[in-house]
Amino acid sequence: MKRRLGYACDGFSSLAIFVFLLAVSGWALAYDDRVDKKTFKIASFTTVGGAVIKDVRFGYETYGHLNAGKDNAIVILPYFLGSGHAAGKYAASDEAAGYWDDIIGPGKPIDTDRYFVIAGDGLINPAIKDGHTLSTGPASIDPHRGKPYGMRFPILSMRDLVNAQKALADSFKIKKLHAVMGLSMGGNQSIEWAAVFPESTERIIAVASEVQASAYAIEYMDALSTCIKIDPSWNRGDYYGKAEPVAGLTAAVKVLLHQTEGYGAVAWAAGRKWTQLGSDPSRSWHNTYAAEAMLDHFAQSFAAILDANSFLYQTKAVQSYIAGDARTLDAGLERIRARVLLLPARSDLLAVPEYSRAAALRLKRLGKDVEYHEIPGNVGHIAAVENITEVGDVIQRFLGE
Amino acid sequence: MKRRLGYACDGFSSLAIFVFLLAVSGWALAYDDRVDKKTFKIASFTTVGGAVIKDVRFGYETYGHLNAGKDNAIVILPYFLGSGHAAGKYAASDEAAGYWDDIIGPGKPIDTDRYFVIAGDGLINPAIKDGHTLSTGPASIDPHRGKPYGMRFPILSMRDLVNAQKALADSFKIKKLHAVMGLSMGGNQSIEWAAVFPESTERIIAVASEVQASAYAIEYMDALSTCIKIDPSWNRGDYYGKAEPVAGLTAAVKVLLHQTEGYGAVAWAAGRKWTQLGSDPSRSWHNTYAAEAMLDHFAQSFAAILDANSFLYQTKAVQSYIAGDARTLDAGLERIRARVLLLPARSDLLAVPEYSRAAALRLKRLGKDVEYHEIPGNVGHIAAVENITEVGDVIQRFLGE
Repeated sequence: MKRRLGYACDGFSSLAIFVFLLAVSGWALAYDDRVDKKTFKIASFTTVGGAVIKDVRFGYETYGHLNAGKDNAIVILPYFLGSGHAAGKYAASDEAAGYWDDIIGPGKPIDTDRYFVIAGDGLINPAIKDGHTLSTGPASIDPHRGKPYGMRFPILSMRDLVNAQKALADSFKIKKLHAVMGLSMGGNQSIEWAAVFPESTERIIAVASEVQASAYAIEYMDALSTCIKIDPSWNRGDYYGKAEPVAGLTAAVKVLLHQTEGYGAVAWAAGRKWTQLGSDPSRSWHNTYAAEAMLDHFAQSFAAILDANSFLYQTKAVQSYIAGDARTLDAGLERIRARVLLLPARSDLLAVPEYSRAAALRLKRLGKDVEYHEIPGNVGHIAAVENITEVGDVIQRFLGE
Repeated sequence: MKRRLGYACDGFSSLAIFVFLLAVSGWALAYDDRVDKKTFKIASFTTVGGAVIKDVRFGYETYGHLNAGKDNAIVILPYFLGSGHAAGKYAASDEAAGYWDDIIGPGKPIDTDRYFVIAGDGLINPAIKDGHTLSTGPASIDPHRGKPYGMRFPILSMRDLVNAQKALADSFKIKKLHAVMGLSMGGNQSIEWAAVFPESTERIIAVASEVQASAYAIEYMDALSTCIKIDPSWNRGDYYGKAEPVAGLTAAVKVLLHQTEGYGAVAWAAGRKWTQLGSDPSRSWHNTYAAEAMLDHFAQSFAAILDANSFLYQTKAVQSYIAGDARTLDAGLERIRARVLLLPARSDLLAVPEYSRAAALRLKRLGKDVEYHEIPGNVGHIAAVENITEVGDVIQRFLGE
C-alpha cells in the first residue's frame, strides 16, 4: 500500500492538483515547441475605479503563429490559481506541460497549425512565485513608497483584468479575435470580454464558469479569505520581507482544492487508504489518511508559489463580477455579439451546471447565439482541465464554424 | 435594501444556520410539551481502542411516552454541529425549537402520541457551550490530572459514539428499538447502530448520510481541522482557561456552513446584495456583501458555543467511519437486519446522493430491505433539516409499516 501511495503522493511534485491526474496521460502529447514567457508592459493603467497604476507588467505565452490577416488569434485567460502557462513546456525536463496542453497544439482542438494562441498571466496573479509567472499586483513595488503595495494596491474588477489582457491582444494589432476562452475565473473573464468588447470578439468559450458571481461564490471567496486573514503572519497584508502567512494560505488552498476537485478525484487517487501501512489514523493524531497527505502535499506546494495578498485581490474580483460590469445581468449580457459556448462540468460542486443552464436560457431569451455542453465525469470543477478532451470535438467544431 | 438585509442578517440571532430558514415557518408548530435536558451517566466507559473513561455523562431529551411493552422507542442521533435538541423548546421564549421539530410532535411524521423519542447529546459533542448541551469529551476534567483532557482524551470512533447512545437506550430497559435515525453524522451513526446491534434494531432512517466516510469526506475533515490548528490559540489543544482558538474555529465553521448549505440557501437569503446600502464591496476592503455578513454572523455564533478540540475529535470519528467498523464495507453492511430508509438530499454538495444510491444498490445486493427517496430542493446538505417535511409522509409510512 505504501508503494501505491508513494505513487499517488510523492510521484507528483508538480505544483498543480489539476496536473496530478492529467500528468499520467499527458506527457507524450505536449505542445511540441518549447515555450517561453515574455513580458508585456503598460506604462500607465487606469482602473475602472479611477486608480492609476504605473509600470504595469505581466507575463504571457504564445503558441502557433499570427497570420498575415491577423484574424486567427485566440486569447486564453487564467483561472484562479492558474497562470498563462496553458500549453507546452519551458524545458524538456519539465514534469508537466501547461494545463490545457491536451487541447492546444498541432492537430489538437485548438490547432496551433491554424490558430495563434495568446495566454497572459494578467494582473494580480497569485502564482508569482512559481519561477515563471509575472504579474503586477499587491506584491509589486509601489513607486510612490519604494516598497510593496500590500493592501494599498487598488481593488480590481473582472473588467480591469480583461482590460489589461485586451491591451496585450491590441499590442499584436489584432482587430478581431477569433475566440476568447478560459476555465473558471478565466471563463468569467471571457464572458466579461465579450460584453465589453462586443465588436472585436467573434467567439467565446466559457468552461465551468458563471455569468455573474453567485451568492454561493461570494460566500466561498469569503471563507477562503478568512483562512488567510486569521494567520497572524498575514499582518494586514504587510508581510513582505518578513514571515509570510503560509499556514493561512495553505488552509485556504486546502479548502479551494477540496471543493473544486469533486468527490471522484480523491476517491480515485487515495480512497480510504492510510498514509503509512501500520499507522492507523483512528489510533493516533500523528497518523493520517492518504487523502489528507495528498491534500496537504498539494496545498503546501501551492502555498509556496502563491502570494497571499494577490489571492485576496482575486477573491474581490470574483465577488464583484457581473457580466459587462452592468447594473443588471441582462444589461451586461445584452451587449454580447460573440457566439457563446458554455461548457460546465457535470459534477461541479462550485460552479454548478445549473448556473450555466440558466445562463444559456437567459442568453437565448436575449437572442444570443449560445451552445451548451456538459463535461462528463465525477471530478468536479477540475473536469475543466482533467476531462477537457471529452469536449475537444465540440471546441474544435465551434472554433471552425 | 438595508432593511431587507436587516431581516436576513440581524433577525436571526439563532445559533444554527439550519434554523435560519426553518424558523420562518416553524415557530407555531413546535412540539407542545416543554422539553428539558436530563443527564445520563456511565461510571466507566471502555472505547473500542481499549481506553477507559471514568464518569462519562451526556445530556438527552425525550419526547412522548414509553409504552408498557417498551416497543415504541425511536432514537435520534446528533449531526456534526448538532445536539440532542431535536424538538420542542426549553422555554416559551426560545427563538427556535429543536432542529427536527417540523417532523416530531403530536400528529407529525414522528408522532409523539404514538412513539417515545430519545435524543442524546452523545460523547465529544462540540456544542457544549450552548447552555444546554452536556457531553464528556476533551473539555472534560481528566480525573487523573485534575484538569481538562485536551488532546489526551482517547480518540473515539463512530462505534464508540453509538455504544454510548445504546447504553442510554438500555437504561430504559428497551429490548427492541422501533427505529434509529439521524441526519448527516447522525445518519452515519444510525447505520453503524444497525450493523452493531442488528437484533434489537427494527428500522433505521439515514438522512443525507454515508455508509462509510468517503475519501472526499476524509479530506473535508482535514481541511476543517487545518483551519482550527493554524490558530496559535489552539496551542495543541491546551487552551482551557486561556484565550480560545475562536478565529480558527470561525474559519472552520465558515467552510463547513458554506459546503453544507448548498448554493440555493444563500442565493435566497442574500443574493448579491451589499451589507450596507452605499457601501460598495468592490470599492473597499471594509465593505462586504450580505452573503459574507451572514456567513460571518452564523460562523461567529457557532464558534461561540463550540469547543474546538471536540470539533477535532468529531472529525476523527467521521474519518474512520465504515459501517459496522468492519474490514470491508460488505462485511459491515451484511450484519444489518433492520429495514433501511435512505433519504439523501438531491442538491447535497457533500454527502452527494450518488453515495446513497450506491449504498442502496449494495444493500439490495446483500439482500437487505432498503428504500431510497431523495429530498428535493437546492439548499444542499441542510435540506436534511430545511426540506425534511417534503419526505414527512415517507418517514411516517416507513415508521408505521
